[in-house]
Amino acid sequence: MTVTITAFERSPDRGRGLSRDTRVRWALEEVGQPYEVRLVSFEALKEPAHLALHPFGQIPTYEEGDLALFETGSIVLHIAERHAGLLPKEANARARAITWMFAAVNTVEPPILDLAIARIQEGDKPWRAERMPLVEQRLRERLGQLSPRLGEAEWLDGAFSAGDLMMISVLLRLKPSGIHEEFPNISAYLARGEARPAYQRAFAAQRAVFEASQSAGS
Amino acid sequence: MTVTITAFERSPDRGRGLSRDTRVRWALEEVGQPYEVRLVSFEALKEPAHLALHPFGQIPTYEEGDLALFETGSIVLHIAERHAGLLPKEANARARAITWMFAAVNTVEPPILDLAIARIQEGDKPWRAERMPLVEQRLRERLGQLSPRLGEAEWLDGAFSAGDLMMISVLLRLKPSGIHEEFPNISAYLARGEARPAYQRAFAAQRAVFEASQSAGS
Repeated sequence: MTVTITAFERSPDRGRGLSRDTRVRWALEEVGQPYEVRLVSFEALKEPAHLALHPFGQIPTYEEGDLALFETGSIVLHIAERHAGLLPKEANARARAITWMFAAVNTVEPPILDLAIARIQEGDKPWRAERMPLVEQRLRERLGQLSPRLGEAEWLDGAFSAGDLMMISVLLRLKPSGIHEEFPNISAYLARGEARPAYQRAFAAQRAVFEASQSAGS
Repeated sequence: MTVTITAFERSPDRGRGLSRDTRVRWALEEVGQPYEVRLVSFEALKEPAHLALHPFGQIPTYEEGDLALFETGSIVLHIAERHAGLLPKEANARARAITWMFAAVNTVEPPILDLAIARIQEGDKPWRAERMPLVEQRLRERLGQLSPRLGEAEWLDGAFSAGDLMMISVLLRLKPSGIHEEFPNISAYLARGEARPAYQRAFAAQRAVFEASQSAGS
């Protein structure tokens, strides 16, 4: 059955792989599932046709026959449940991998998003300079808890899983800030993720969309 | 097999049901799974024994034989997968219910937490008054997207599911602010959740912990 995802027609990150479609592309590449991409303009995100697929007006969405999903965690879990390679077969290890998926989106991503909000959405506000250390401190505290748990392991819990895919995807959003470099084992973990051939293919595919939008000259 | 969860010895919300153990208690009550509770002090949360169970030093955790989990989304999904009553049997409906679980923790909870951070952690900061409208605006935007999707339906997608359990749990954290009351259908949705006998039992159980800590007189 054909899988179709949505992505930004013009990605705000200018093809750096930080938009959330990259997570889904990566999962599909890991399991070898071909997919089609429908590009969506910022205007179309808020229109009824897209809101029917994604009530919060974001990308990506995932369509497969009669099934329509949103939320990258849910989409990646759906892919991981239907194909081998992203979840351990043993029940307890599988539950722990799913735990890391939730930890990525519910515990690690919020302070990373707060940093983005403080830098971009509130970047021109008078409190920016005074407030930023608090925002960075909350983020460093979270990374300072993740780092010892990861230790010198290659992945979070045994073999590479959907938990690592989500955690690495979330942490990569720190790259513009450089804060991840304060935690060498986290930096090395991100580099291992980025070195995976499936990630490379996903990155190249989203990058090609940005380059096409540029050469379209508008 | 005995299920043991952790909860705050002294809940910061003073027994109002807003600590995250309530979500897990609710799920266990919905499926009729008995459980034991181990209370943890604030000091013990940061000690190695607890960090081995929960790398981010929070509650709740979930132990069942050799399995140890953290993250409420993961724990509730684990319970829902092993017992009838919290996930539809039909594959597509099941995937959509899991989508709402992720939407609760990754899309709806972050702006609710930001409001709590702005009011409590940054409540004494000089930017509080000027910044608060921005924080509330981001939250109202999210609720303003959820409200039309919910419409006049009883639950988010057909029968009550783990998706509703997570979404309602997350939204209940708005009660101290009253902002949910600006969206009557969301308020009614929360009231339907709170009226469920399983929620009532979960609420009473967490409340009893608070009351015992008070009568202990310390």
